[in-house]
Amino acid sequence: MTHSKEKTGLSHLDDQGQAKMVDVTAKDETTREAVACGIIRMQPETVRLIQVGGLSKGDVFSVARVAGIMAAKKTWGLIPLCHPLMLTGIDVSFNSNPESGEIALEARVKTVGKTGVEMEALTAVSVAALTIYDMCKAVDREMVIAEIFLQSKQGGRSGTFLRSGFSPSPPSGS
Amino acid sequence: MTHSKEKTGLSHLDDQGQAKMVDVTAKDETTREAVACGIIRMQPETVRLIQVGGLSKGDVFSVARVAGIMAAKKTWGLIPLCHPLMLTGIDVSFNSNPESGEIALEARVKTVGKTGVEMEALTAVSVAALTIYDMCKAVDREMVIAEIFLQSKQGGRSGTFLRSGFSPSPPSGS
Amino acid sequence: MTHSKEKTGLSHLDDQGQAKMVDVTAKDETTREAVACGIIRMQPETVRLIQVGGLSKGDVFSVARVAGIMAAKKTWGLIPLCHPLMLTGIDVSFNSNPESGEIALEARVKTVGKTGVEMEALTAVSVAALTIYDMCKAVDREMVIAEIFLQSKQGGRSGTFLRSGFSPSPPSGS
Amino acid sequence: MTHSKEKTGLSHLDDQGQAKMVDVTAKDETTREAVACGIIRMQPETVRLIQVGGLSKGDVFSVARVAGIMAAKKTWGLIPLCHPLMLTGIDVSFNSNPESGEIALEARVKTVGKTGVEMEALTAVSVAALTIYDMCKAVDREMVIAEIFLQSKQGGRSGTFLRSGFSPSPPSGS
Amino acid sequence: MTHSKEKTGLSHLDDQGQAKMVDVTAKDETTREAVACGIIRMQPETVRLIQVGGLSKGDVFSVARVAGIMAAKKTWGLIPLCHPLMLTGIDVSFNSNPESGEIALEARVKTVGKTGVEMEALTAVSVAALTIYDMCKAVDREMVIAEIFLQSKQGGRSGTFLRSGFSPSPPSGS
Amino acid sequence: MTHSKEKTGLSHLDDQGQAKMVDVTAKDETTREAVACGIIRMQPETVRLIQVGGLSKGDVFSVARVAGIMAAKKTWGLIPLCHPLMLTGIDVSFNSNPESGEIALEARVKTVGKTGVEMEALTAVSVAALTIYDMCKAVDREMVIAEIFLQSKQGGRSGTFLRSGFSPSPPSGS
Repeated sequence: MTHSKEKTGLSHLDDQGQAKMVDVTAKDETTREAVACGIIRMQPETVRLIQVGGLSKGDVFSVARVAGIMAAKKTWGLIPLCHPLMLTGIDVSFNSNPESGEIALEARVKTVGKTGVEMEALTAVSVAALTIYDMCKAVDREMVIAEIFLQSKQGGRSGTFLRSGFSPSPPSGS
Repeated sequence: MTHSKEKTGLSHLDDQGQAKMVDVTAKDETTREAVACGIIRMQPETVRLIQVGGLSKGDVFSVARVAGIMAAKKTWGLIPLCHPLMLTGIDVSFNSNPESGEIALEARVKTVGKTGVEMEALTAVSVAALTIYDMCKAVDREMVIAEIFLQSKQGGRSGTFLRSGFSPSPPSGS
Repeated sequence: MTHSKEKTGLSHLDDQGQAKMVDVTAKDETTREAVACGIIRMQPETVRLIQVGGLSKGDVFSVARVAGIMAAKKTWGLIPLCHPLMLTGIDVSFNSNPESGEIALEARVKTVGKTGVEMEALTAVSVAALTIYDMCKAVDREMVIAEIFLQSKQGGRSGTFLRSGFSPSPPSGS
Repeated sequence: MTHSKEKTGLSHLDDQGQAKMVDVTAKDETTREAVACGIIRMQPETVRLIQVGGLSKGDVFSVARVAGIMAAKKTWGLIPLCHPLMLTGIDVSFNSNPESGEIALEARVKTVGKTGVEMEALTAVSVAALTIYDMCKAVDREMVIAEIFLQSKQGGRSGTFLRSGFSPSPPSGS
Repeated sequence: MTHSKEKTGLSHLDDQGQAKMVDVTAKDETTREAVACGIIRMQPETVRLIQVGGLSKGDVFSVARVAGIMAAKKTWGLIPLCHPLMLTGIDVSFNSNPESGEIALEARVKTVGKTGVEMEALTAVSVAALTIYDMCKAVDREMVIAEIFLQSKQGGRSGTFLRSGFSPSPPSGS
Repeated sequence: MTHSKEKTGLSHLDDQGQAKMVDVTAKDETTREAVACGIIRMQPETVRLIQVGGLSKGDVFSVARVAGIMAAKKTWGLIPLCHPLMLTGIDVSFNSNPESGEIALEARVKTVGKTGVEMEALTAVSVAALTIYDMCKAVDREMVIAEIFLQSKQGGRSGTFLRSGFSPSPPSGS
């Protein structure tokens, strides 16, 4: 068997290419934070419909925000090799642009633990986007969930990561 | 209050813009199917690393496939206003292209029920993509989950939907 | 052993007083609906604080509504002897009264199935009330969740039930 | 936007009235304990039926106790803005009074963590009460779950809270 | 690729040996029942300790019974390729023998659906046995969960199955 | 009432024989590890069918491994009186023997916490075995899940435990 970790570089595969949960027993608990972003593209009219609802009751974003927060907490139950973590802070925000027909999503997740919260932030964005999709699909079936990525992370042995060459306008409320 | 369903067209919002689970009590149970697609972009070298593992043990795709299947079944617990459904078939497949640094994902979901399975197929693709991300993030933090969309749906009162003007090459195994 | 069902009348206990999930295999699937109500009592000032938030963004009630809807779907996983059911409609609404310091909650749940949805409606009210409590507890620790009860049910062999001698003013939005 | 935290005082709403999970990253881990109480009112005859079963097998209380303990552990998955916590102790007890037709419930929950366990104790009481309701509803549909409240809490920055002017007789077994 | 279903005979693997949830969309809904059995072996003294508790309050068996019933309902969330099913009846029973140091477990599960409930019955037995283990492990760490198997199944296209050459004495209460 | 802990020795039962979650608030967090083993017996031909699939794609073991890992993380939600724990490492491995018709399973689980991970390791083995059963049951309904036991544990006040007089050949891949 020659597919050792050294060869593949994939930390979730053991010496024989089999999945395992990486052993983090000996790692220190440090303060960690991750920010993930995403975009959902739709008809400009669909964005406006959300905003009309949003201005009076804000419900599409409210429901999507709650869905994203709850999903972040369940990440370890969705992603097979993720470690359970006790999240200490979750923020999900939206920025809608009816001209371009785009809604930008951002999730910021924090913990004090042995592993990072990148997957939790990415899961929050993904499920918030799916929730927007669900609530709008009756009027727009051609929406696309696009460009979900890690914007930054801090803490842990690998230190700070800041995505290069990509600066989406920061979401600011709805 | 003027944000009636007639005005907003968003079926999940009631007369006052508040979230509710759409009442489908009186709808017939029909056979339904939905296909969702997605792409995850990464370094070409990362695709090759997955394939090396994939050729011998196939584990990245195996784990992501299981994660996608299990997530499809949990969709109603993740997306707040989704109806519970008893899925009768779930397929998740991958098509990797080391030249372009892209992995295409496709999920096909079936049920016999009162509502469609679009969200289940989209959730399967999203969680399978997140799982690939999780398993590769140690070697490639700049991956992007992109272009998650509904390819087609069949069954139900609104009938067949086939996405226009988009024909990704069909995934075919790994 | 003498604690037979005939003697105790409790359908969840078998002939020896042991818990079991009641066998409903042979029951017909019928359309069912249940309405449950509840009240949460707090300082009048706390109700006003919710309303201030509620008028602009509606978030306390939005979050509580989503929590109640999601909890209704999970009832079978919380209440040990409840049967799983595919809910076809869930509504959660609130009526706040700052004079009396009371918020009334109502959940209406529907299904087509072999068992009723009383527990689902009661669970939705309970979790929505707990969510309000959670969001307000920093300013008011003496809140009381009170008077959670079944208002009515329809469908099934036992037919229609309408609670006697109790007519709370119906919740109407927020 | 004027609904700042300063104005509303509700810690779960950010500067624009939107839901977020409060950031507790920087808080110390301390030993925490909370006690919640509740009452479920029913026909005196129903209390006696439970006790008859209870004397021989104790099953209604046994099932409700297990349901309450398991629900306490799932609180963070039910209440959207609750932080995940690793509970270190949970006790659920009952005190039934066939004369008044009342069953008193008490849950005591402990942890060592950054946030309190009030919601966990209240959730344990609520779900235990719902379970009693479920097991008795075939013989008594007019039961009322009443007076769920926080009796006391200890630990954390806000220190000890002891509910004033309310001294229910302490539950003592069944 | 030559590992077709025809060759391997394993219905969960597709033509290329990849996992999938078997498509049961076109199957009829029929009444189904499965009975699974298991044994947990321990020190005879441990069985007696359970019985002493069991005679007065029955709690080890009560807790294990509830755990088994709740786990049966969650089977589709635990076993990756299981179909979700709405169970219509679950019974878990125990038969303890202090002489041999054995506790026999039996779970009987029913549904009306497109797939059988073998896995639900086996999961109920497994989790009930794990719960007994958990509650007794402080006094007996050498317990063994042994001989979990399918005793019988009825309904569905493959008809009735009755395990041959194995007739454990039927559990009868505790 | 005389069934005190002193008398029964069962730490999960309180002074009156009622279930409770043992209070571990004051225990130290220490590094803990547990190894559990199990065997699933089947027709020798079934083992060979798995291996044929296993050699090319490894899917039966891949799916069972993922199922075992995910179940270990959910143990506290399945076993009523288990404490929630943040697992820091999980390994599930298999060793198949077509001559004897046996597949050996082993799960190794680690954490840093106040309670041990025996139940998590045993749950991983049980659910991995159930998953193998599920994937093979179409060709072999007489499989038996046998001999699930704790092989060793380390850490915590009770120190190291190593099962006596039992040395199964260690699993080594598939």
